[in-house]
Amino acid sequence: MASVDVPVALLGYGTVGASVNRLLVEGAEEIERATGHRLRVVKALVRDPSKERTFVADEGVLTTDFDEILGDPSIQLVAEVMGGVEPTAEHVLRLLRAGKPVVSANKQLLARRSADLFAAAADGGVQLRFEASVCAAIPVIKVLRESLVVTNVHRVLGIVNGTTNFILSTMEQGGSYDEALAEAQRLGYAESDPTDDVSGADAAAKMAILATVAFGSRVTLDDVLYEGIEQIRPHHVAAARELDSVVRLVGAATRVNGAVDVRVGPALVDRHHPLATVEGAFNAVMLQGDAIREITLEGPGAGGDETASAVVADMVSVLGTTGTGFLQNDAVYRQLDRLTPGHLVSRFYVRLEVTDRPGVLAHVAERFADEGVSIAQLTQHLLDGSAALDVVTHAAPAGRVEAALAAIGALDEARAKPEALRMISERGVE
Amino acid sequence: MASVDVPVALLGYGTVGASVNRLLVEGAEEIERATGHRLRVVKALVRDPSKERTFVADEGVLTTDFDEILGDPSIQLVAEVMGGVEPTAEHVLRLLRAGKPVVSANKQLLARRSADLFAAAADGGVQLRFEASVCAAIPVIKVLRESLVVTNVHRVLGIVNGTTNFILSTMEQGGSYDEALAEAQRLGYAESDPTDDVSGADAAAKMAILATVAFGSRVTLDDVLYEGIEQIRPHHVAAARELDSVVRLVGAATRVNGAVDVRVGPALVDRHHPLATVEGAFNAVMLQGDAIREITLEGPGAGGDETASAVVADMVSVLGTTGTGFLQNDAVYRQLDRLTPGHLVSRFYVRLEVTDRPGVLAHVAERFADEGVSIAQLTQHLLDGSAALDVVTHAAPAGRVEAALAAIGALDEARAKPEALRMISERGVE
Repeated sequence: MASVDVPVALLGYGTVGASVNRLLVEGAEEIERATGHRLRVVKALVRDPSKERTFVADEGVLTTDFDEILGDPSIQLVAEVMGGVEPTAEHVLRLLRAGKPVVSANKQLLARRSADLFAAAADGGVQLRFEASVCAAIPVIKVLRESLVVTNVHRVLGIVNGTTNFILSTMEQGGSYDEALAEAQRLGYAESDPTDDVSGADAAAKMAILATVAFGSRVTLDDVLYEGIEQIRPHHVAAARELDSVVRLVGAATRVNGAVDVRVGPALVDRHHPLATVEGAFNAVMLQGDAIREITLEGPGAGGDETASAVVADMVSVLGTTGTGFLQNDAVYRQLDRLTPGHLVSRFYVRLEVTDRPGVLAHVAERFADEGVSIAQLTQHLLDGSAALDVVTHAAPAGRVEAALAAIGALDEARAKPEALRMISERGVE
Repeated sequence: MASVDVPVALLGYGTVGASVNRLLVEGAEEIERATGHRLRVVKALVRDPSKERTFVADEGVLTTDFDEILGDPSIQLVAEVMGGVEPTAEHVLRLLRAGKPVVSANKQLLARRSADLFAAAADGGVQLRFEASVCAAIPVIKVLRESLVVTNVHRVLGIVNGTTNFILSTMEQGGSYDEALAEAQRLGYAESDPTDDVSGADAAAKMAILATVAFGSRVTLDDVLYEGIEQIRPHHVAAARELDSVVRLVGAATRVNGAVDVRVGPALVDRHHPLATVEGAFNAVMLQGDAIREITLEGPGAGGDETASAVVADMVSVLGTTGTGFLQNDAVYRQLDRLTPGHLVSRFYVRLEVTDRPGVLAHVAERFADEGVSIAQLTQHLLDGSAALDVVTHAAPAGRVEAALAAIGALDEARAKPEALRMISERGVE
């Protein structure tokens, strides 16, 4: 096939946009070998064309006028790397409806507006791809949609936020949460306002996208139950170590009996589990399905070049599949119920602080037994006049464990609010 | 796009072939949603149609006559799951030349005949895909060819043989090589003649395929330097543990200064390296490139369903890209030289057994110094009348280390042939 220049446009020309342009220029031969085409950025929407850029665009490429992109019939593909939900969504919807395929790196856009976006893509008869919206260069969306078509994926476990993973890895070396956060900020892994990362909100958006693709059922940000790592203290890290585990912020999307549960929260991950070795700001996603058992993908979950690499891969994939009908539709084809959150079954690590006096263990054990929660292991540490109990439960519904903890917290002997963390154990078992 | 039935054929209908047919039947809706098509197996080439099958093919599907497939113009796609190099190669070449795209699960075929195969695919104007030829369901070929197009991959590190990984993981629990091999045979992870696996030959074929795709330069089995794990003894495993490492059979394909080095051999892998946590019969491949830093894919490297899942993914991908020119050509576009094997730079663990007498350490140190090999760490263990030295070198060319070991082996004080294992350290560094 003779090489054909394909004019493309970018929405946004910041760090990622400039890197996309650079990769398209420097990788032009590789792209041509794979697709028969050369991609050339002819327009890039920016707010301020005079701003300095890490990779300078050709004369006349930068524009502040969206209509120059929408109205240019020669532009065959658009990459959205501007971020934000508005006006980004409006731009992307109009492009899709006008028959221009779009590639997006925008997790908030996908986690909040994917139903509208895919409806517009169907109207326009074009593709919307979004690999870079989750875990940067780790090709988890492509693998889910193209490699695991017939494997009936029923669980996605992920470390999908690098900031929190850096903080938790750093705490393993000793030191408090505040110290680890300060170190992450110093190294540029955490923002000065780290709320979006440490609260679990960022991970929740990514898990919503992954769950939607994996299960073919729409999961939005509002469907994800999440908590962050702000409450993690050195004693959690120490307890994890005693249980041959590490504390990680884990996103888990599970399909059980036709219902879906998507949650993000700190968990104890067994050291032999592939997610336990994800260190620093790296991300990893484990996909569990029938024919594959499990596949884990690990890599950097952020970074300008890494994100740009995924954007370019999507652009290449759009070119490589246009006109074949492949992935032309939304991945969503059913609407599964949301699992009642308390019904999700897991093993739990529980920490209790109680007055050290005869009978307290029996009282605690009774409260677990009342809820049908079976104890696998119990270790008592004597503190100053009180005792800390590290309890590991057998697999039990989260709601039953919460109820037991509420009852224990109401005991006369309770000295602090009981705390529970999910445990993620050996491959495939929980 | 209206659904269209696509008649396909299989070469071979053993465990993998039957599983492919089952996945196509059970996953028909998923495939139709992704591609707009239903794939239907209309012919399957077998030697003995009367043999019992795990998933029974429809009446009239099994045939012993290859021409029924080659000559049927309705058949649009063929999956080769019969194994072997001949007559398989002849069949595949004829199908490709006749304009039928082929998907192959056959590592020996790809590692030995890929130049001919891709020439035939070009003649026929069709695709040849081969995801299942390496690491079963782990989608490493697709990720290399489609997701990492512009990332200039310069190194591929892999644990690509499950049998040896099971044996080495088992030896960590204590026990000899022979005991671990017997356990692997008992569990069906190793064949009664395990030579192909334990010699490194199987891993070498897979690394040849991965290197070819990653570097765009033909690497055949003959280009791969390999050794196996037959010489690994409990003392290697113990030494690894002391160095916070594990022994693994590692395939490494490296591009340095425009030359290529592909080798397979036992190595000490640092516990913090993603490959160190690959346990049992699992496989993992780490891809290192410019824009991505590194991406690691891990999963089961064998199994009927796992292999079939990759075959089906390739079939889906052929449908999804036909007519677009995507991946229509061979990945090979240049011929890089083979690096002189002694020039590959690495850190090494060296074990020496010497007479325990004054001056011996100085003699050993001199021989390393003569070759410019710098010692990072040296630990002496007293044995019965002799001493075992565990030496860790700084990064040095393999040839220099070998020369130093030859000189040390020739010392009067030498009590055994010196042994060296490469060390694979923290991410990206070696």
